[in-house]
Amino acid sequence: MLKHWIRPDKPDKEELKSRLKAAGERLEAQQLRLKDKKLPVLVLIEGWGAAGKGSTIGQLIKHIDPRFFQVFSMAAPTAEERRKPFLTRYFERIPEAGKFTFLDSGWMDEVTKERLNGVLGDEAYAQRVDSVKRFERQLTDNGYLVLKFFFQISRKEQARRINGLMDDKDTAWRVSRGDLWQNHHYERCAEVFDRYLEDTNTPSAPWYIVDARSKKFAELQVLETLCTGIDTALQNESLAVPLLQNVFPLIKMPKLSEAPLKDKTLSEGEYKEELKRLQSKLRMLHNRLYRKRVPVVIVYEGWDAAGKGGNIKRLTGALDPRGFEVHPVASPEPHEKARHYLWRFWKSLPKDGHIAIFDRSWYGRVMVERLEGFCSENDWQRAYYEMNEFEQELHNWGAVVLKFWVQIDKDTQLERFTERKNTPSKQWKLTDEDWRNREKWDVYEAAVDEMLQKTSTTYAPWHILESVDKKFARIKALRIVTEALEAALK
Amino acid sequence: MLKHWIRPDKPDKEELKSRLKAAGERLEAQQLRLKDKKLPVLVLIEGWGAAGKGSTIGQLIKHIDPRFFQVFSMAAPTAEERRKPFLTRYFERIPEAGKFTFLDSGWMDEVTKERLNGVLGDEAYAQRVDSVKRFERQLTDNGYLVLKFFFQISRKEQARRINGLMDDKDTAWRVSRGDLWQNHHYERCAEVFDRYLEDTNTPSAPWYIVDARSKKFAELQVLETLCTGIDTALQNESLAVPLLQNVFPLIKMPKLSEAPLKDKTLSEGEYKEELKRLQSKLRMLHNRLYRKRVPVVIVYEGWDAAGKGGNIKRLTGALDPRGFEVHPVASPEPHEKARHYLWRFWKSLPKDGHIAIFDRSWYGRVMVERLEGFCSENDWQRAYYEMNEFEQELHNWGAVVLKFWVQIDKDTQLERFTERKNTPSKQWKLTDEDWRNREKWDVYEAAVDEMLQKTSTTYAPWHILESVDKKFARIKALRIVTEALEAALK
Repeated sequence: MLKHWIRPDKPDKEELKSRLKAAGERLEAQQLRLKDKKLPVLVLIEGWGAAGKGSTIGQLIKHIDPRFFQVFSMAAPTAEERRKPFLTRYFERIPEAGKFTFLDSGWMDEVTKERLNGVLGDEAYAQRVDSVKRFERQLTDNGYLVLKFFFQISRKEQARRINGLMDDKDTAWRVSRGDLWQNHHYERCAEVFDRYLEDTNTPSAPWYIVDARSKKFAELQVLETLCTGIDTALQNESLAVPLLQNVFPLIKMPKLSEAPLKDKTLSEGEYKEELKRLQSKLRMLHNRLYRKRVPVVIVYEGWDAAGKGGNIKRLTGALDPRGFEVHPVASPEPHEKARHYLWRFWKSLPKDGHIAIFDRSWYGRVMVERLEGFCSENDWQRAYYEMNEFEQELHNWGAVVLKFWVQIDKDTQLERFTERKNTPSKQWKLTDEDWRNREKWDVYEAAVDEMLQKTSTTYAPWHILESVDKKFARIKALRIVTEALEAALK
Repeated sequence: MLKHWIRPDKPDKEELKSRLKAAGERLEAQQLRLKDKKLPVLVLIEGWGAAGKGSTIGQLIKHIDPRFFQVFSMAAPTAEERRKPFLTRYFERIPEAGKFTFLDSGWMDEVTKERLNGVLGDEAYAQRVDSVKRFERQLTDNGYLVLKFFFQISRKEQARRINGLMDDKDTAWRVSRGDLWQNHHYERCAEVFDRYLEDTNTPSAPWYIVDARSKKFAELQVLETLCTGIDTALQNESLAVPLLQNVFPLIKMPKLSEAPLKDKTLSEGEYKEELKRLQSKLRMLHNRLYRKRVPVVIVYEGWDAAGKGGNIKRLTGALDPRGFEVHPVASPEPHEKARHYLWRFWKSLPKDGHIAIFDRSWYGRVMVERLEGFCSENDWQRAYYEMNEFEQELHNWGAVVLKFWVQIDKDTQLERFTERKNTPSKQWKLTDEDWRNREKWDVYEAAVDEMLQKTSTTYAPWHILESVDKKFARIKALRIVTEALEAALK
């Protein structure tokens, strides 16, 4: 793209000034419509070192109320950040509905740097590009406006600016070794940048190359593109997004009604023996996966009163508390609802070597959110694909991903509800909502069946835990987890 | 304390077993009362390396529903964490109301390590102890149960355990160089630990020394102490806390009604000239404070429509967006309301070298929360002291702390409300709540006066910005900020 890019004509001083003023006022007016329409805007400013990315952002935000934007300057990932999937720190920073996030360099900078210094080979680079495209598409599909700018300057101009900054001790810190390296390897960098720009230039999140020779002109180019982008996005607000074909390696799952429950039992003796054996095995595996830095993500979904809590406890009972977290998932709080529905899960990912257990999960999207109308039909239909992508991201990162559906029948649920109602120490577990959900058993079952069919992948399979006999379900979960960890540690 | 500690008698095997069972059941029952009564419990487990802290936590949590606790294993602070006040990462991890946090080592470990390796001299150590005591007292004063355990083992026992762990490659990673060092300098460590235990042994958060020779017995000691502590705390729930005398270096502030507004104006010409001059000065100072890693915290409070937003923009207009954040503060979300009211502000502190601007702040505690009855009288009265402490913590860390009260009179507010009402692009700024607050002007004014008297300290002074003429207020803010930064950078 850089090769064939035609430098735009710079307007004269007078025109520049009046257009800057007009665009600034336009953005000022837009911020309120954006707020009303709850449009989130992510502006990514990438480009050469010393091209003026930061100072352009400084100019842009003057037109926006401080309550409506955040600026993040992304340095190289910290040691802590390197222990998560590489997109995590970007996903964590996506804006709330109705607000802007400006990123001063982002995932392009990270990927191209790693490409240039040889960390990413061809295959790893291709995987990164895939991840990036999916990330951006997931954002735009979910109503985000994603604007990507590349600040272009010549080698000569870059050298001039670097020298200018270095001359003053108060600005010298701004010049990184990376900037100097870039200038010395300008052609090689340009090639890698160009390739990346082409690889990630998608219709929903295209690149804009900015002629950054003059600061004011660069500002104008960004400002006008930003305004146009916002206008277009505001017009598109109720557009449904095409559903992508489910191309993930799926595992055929039985329907819930066809999964036998009755003979899935264990005697007390078998249970105790197996529990002891599997827990001590798991304890040992946990130490090993910590040492080998394998991350593990375990999802629990299931009927109310199916025994999720007790099942999870038998798992965690064998784990070193320094190496796992349980995330109980309730309905989202306002700041969570204001973002992509996967945001709060990205924020809860384990570090490598750790285990994260989700007591309910992102699958709420295709169950409660679908059935209670908390999202549109287009939203939840798209979600199957998005969740398969999300889990593939985790898998590619090296995580073991396991998903459990804790299954009981309707009669068993009634028995347990009644018992909870009559046992003071268990009453807190039973809410009016549980009774309401119970009335909708059949529609829930259909939704669960669809979910199991569409999201059980080879890399993140669903397992049904037959839990009329809770002992059976617990041993089955422990067995699946230990086997999966053994396989991963081989 | 360690010197005079008398090792408790270990019960025989039968008794140990039955008491463990009883205490476990007691804790299981307590977790629900805790949840109902919204009691937050912070359990700090400190002690010698390899004393069994982690595995004891592993046993304790078996009695608690995974939804009700979190475990954090605190390693040495990361480079990122070192750029915040040292208590930040602990404050961030305090539990929600009705839940437990278990810390596997915490601030004792950090402080004593730094004492042992010479990072903390006598004075710095004394300051740390002060900070710790204040932190713990602020938690207990605000209804937290804080339980601190020290796991005691002999030098010989420690050596035995370290060797045991080292023998197996899957557990060898658990032995740190610190553990080995400790064992080789056992006496010296014991002295520093003992001193710290005595220094921080307070009535509201006392130490419990645990005989950790036997794992089961250690578990019993913690479990029984925990249960007793919870029972006591549940009985105390509505206890008011003594108000401490305001012993901070206060600056005498005028009453708002005595602060003249009328002649505080600037001509357009003076304004433009001063704005340009001060902004360019501030730009330069921002670079220097980034380089010198000085953190800055600026608080804006003031009447609705006083011009806070525009004032902040004139400040940020001069700043490099990579080095500041504006935090607009609205009413707290559920997960914020469930914790100490300063929690969300601790989470928003700037890194060193950065500027954090708070558009409304923790002072909501003694204004809106006081006047709308969102907290008890005891709560808001205590808050003056707590906020002085909080800011002193920031000051000791090296931060410049400035607080602005943006002042207008009642007539000016009415004019601006009317203008907002009649200007479509400004209507979003005016809410029904603004009108309701306006009706309570007099009680608000009295509360603000009290706040200014009680929380304007030499290290974090309040400044009144006369904002009937917004230009005047903006220039005054810029002048105060640049002068404070110049002084700090000298």
